[in-house]
Amino acid sequence: MSLPKEVRLVEVGPRDGLQNEAQPISVADKVRLVDDLTAAGLAYIEVGSFVSPKWVPQMAGSAEVFAGIQQRPGVTYAALAPNLRGFEDALAAGVKEVAVFAAASEAFSQRNINCSISDSLKRFEPIMEAARSHGVRVRGYVSCVLGCPYEGKVSAEQVAPVARALHDMGCYEVSLGDTIGTGTAGDTRRLFEVVSALVPRGQLAGHFHDTYGQALANVYASLLEGINVFDSSVAGLGGCPYAKGATGNIATEDVVYLLQGLGIATGIDLDRLIAAGQRISDVLGRSNGSRVARARNAQ
Amino acid sequence: MSLPKEVRLVEVGPRDGLQNEAQPISVADKVRLVDDLTAAGLAYIEVGSFVSPKWVPQMAGSAEVFAGIQQRPGVTYAALAPNLRGFEDALAAGVKEVAVFAAASEAFSQRNINCSISDSLKRFEPIMEAARSHGVRVRGYVSCVLGCPYEGKVSAEQVAPVARALHDMGCYEVSLGDTIGTGTAGDTRRLFEVVSALVPRGQLAGHFHDTYGQALANVYASLLEGINVFDSSVAGLGGCPYAKGATGNIATEDVVYLLQGLGIATGIDLDRLIAAGQRISDVLGRSNGSRVARARNAQ
Repeated sequence: MSLPKEVRLVEVGPRDGLQNEAQPISVADKVRLVDDLTAAGLAYIEVGSFVSPKWVPQMAGSAEVFAGIQQRPGVTYAALAPNLRGFEDALAAGVKEVAVFAAASEAFSQRNINCSISDSLKRFEPIMEAARSHGVRVRGYVSCVLGCPYEGKVSAEQVAPVARALHDMGCYEVSLGDTIGTGTAGDTRRLFEVVSALVPRGQLAGHFHDTYGQALANVYASLLEGINVFDSSVAGLGGCPYAKGATGNIATEDVVYLLQGLGIATGIDLDRLIAAGQRISDVLGRSNGSRVARARNAQ
Repeated sequence: MSLPKEVRLVEVGPRDGLQNEAQPISVADKVRLVDDLTAAGLAYIEVGSFVSPKWVPQMAGSAEVFAGIQQRPGVTYAALAPNLRGFEDALAAGVKEVAVFAAASEAFSQRNINCSISDSLKRFEPIMEAARSHGVRVRGYVSCVLGCPYEGKVSAEQVAPVARALHDMGCYEVSLGDTIGTGTAGDTRRLFEVVSALVPRGQLAGHFHDTYGQALANVYASLLEGINVFDSSVAGLGGCPYAKGATGNIATEDVVYLLQGLGIATGIDLDRLIAAGQRISDVLGRSNGSRVARARNAQ
């Protein structure tokens, strides 16, 4: 299979990234980050999460962030909506696309969202119905697709039915997440081979964490399987609070660098992206998690 | 092309790694590192360099290191010998295998070893002759195979004749090094496609630096091209002093983790390797450059 000619990156830094950073961050800094990412040419930005601030304090103020950002036509500004209450809050904030998430591992589902995989999927049904009636698109996430902090290795056969359930209930795209970053290239290829028997490859995305340094090799392995949508996080923001030693999401800059090298179009201006990532890293007082950014900034 | 069933890793940490670390390190600590690597199952260890200590102070004492290490039968303990004087010193220290290095970029050759590529190859001839007469095997390195800090992009067509010259003069294996880490997976595959027209794939090795986060993806790309020997550095020791912002060699631990995931045999005990890398990192007072080691040590 030849490589895709174009890849769409789903920028998860402002949501999946920031929610896992320890430092507090102001609404103004979040707005600036999203606007910087828009200016860098990202076509899809996950802006925030409509979830109780008791659970995820970093995501407080998502409605204010949506009200503050400059929305460029053609760019998708999405939010996570884990339940109907969150969906309604997102709708009130003018959000046109939401995301829901399930897990491929029972133990992770129980410990992370306090219910079985099956129950979590049932909880999405009223969201899907409400989304349909309001013309809101829904993207699905499956976490722990290659490994679970409690169960260990997760098989592609465990992932496939969860991905299919999300697809069947109306998610236009399902993102498969290696939440703890333990997966390697061969398992990644097999994952997409198996899952694509139930969900078309064109409706699947890859979401890799770099905890074991495997993320970019997994992106390349996915490209060889015809996958052309990837989630990534500017400056490698975030991680997973449930995975000890997690080094966070794969950095958007490093994925863009790979794709440019492969001659695959993304529409992203790497220099502006690096500047956006360095700015938010400075705001957070953290080192920049993108190796491309560190190398360029050292020049 | 299917993946190789076995891979041999050439451990360059004690040489390429330590020579680029700023901290001084004692002969005893170097000996301990090599012994730890032997115990972890590495079959090839580049122990030191026989070069003027004025040029490379970190490599002073290589003869003492060779005298101090426990040599396990079947394991290769090699040294860099940039000239005949170095080769004779290596021979006196009992070294059975040496390495020589050339560059694929004229500008890098001039600035790094102060002569043209062609002159550098001529300088190796007396080493090759002396090595033959003493039954010493010689491995060749080519640096800057995908990019040069002075010339920018380097083409596979520039690399191939240099690799062939080393092969023709008697190097049993030629390691192609992405010294500044700018190469991506597609260029890596093309590199091996082009060079293997002149040097058999079974006599080529890959040597990747992780400056731009691409090293492990490049290893996977190389495996897909049938390459089954890779240079790597425990704990990601070292880097290239000529490449600004260099983050060093790819960490052996991260390569072993990938290979284990792919079901490729290496003979290496990952836990012992991680312990060896953590120990030398502690000695140097540096953070561990292996993400696998950091993730495992955080558990």
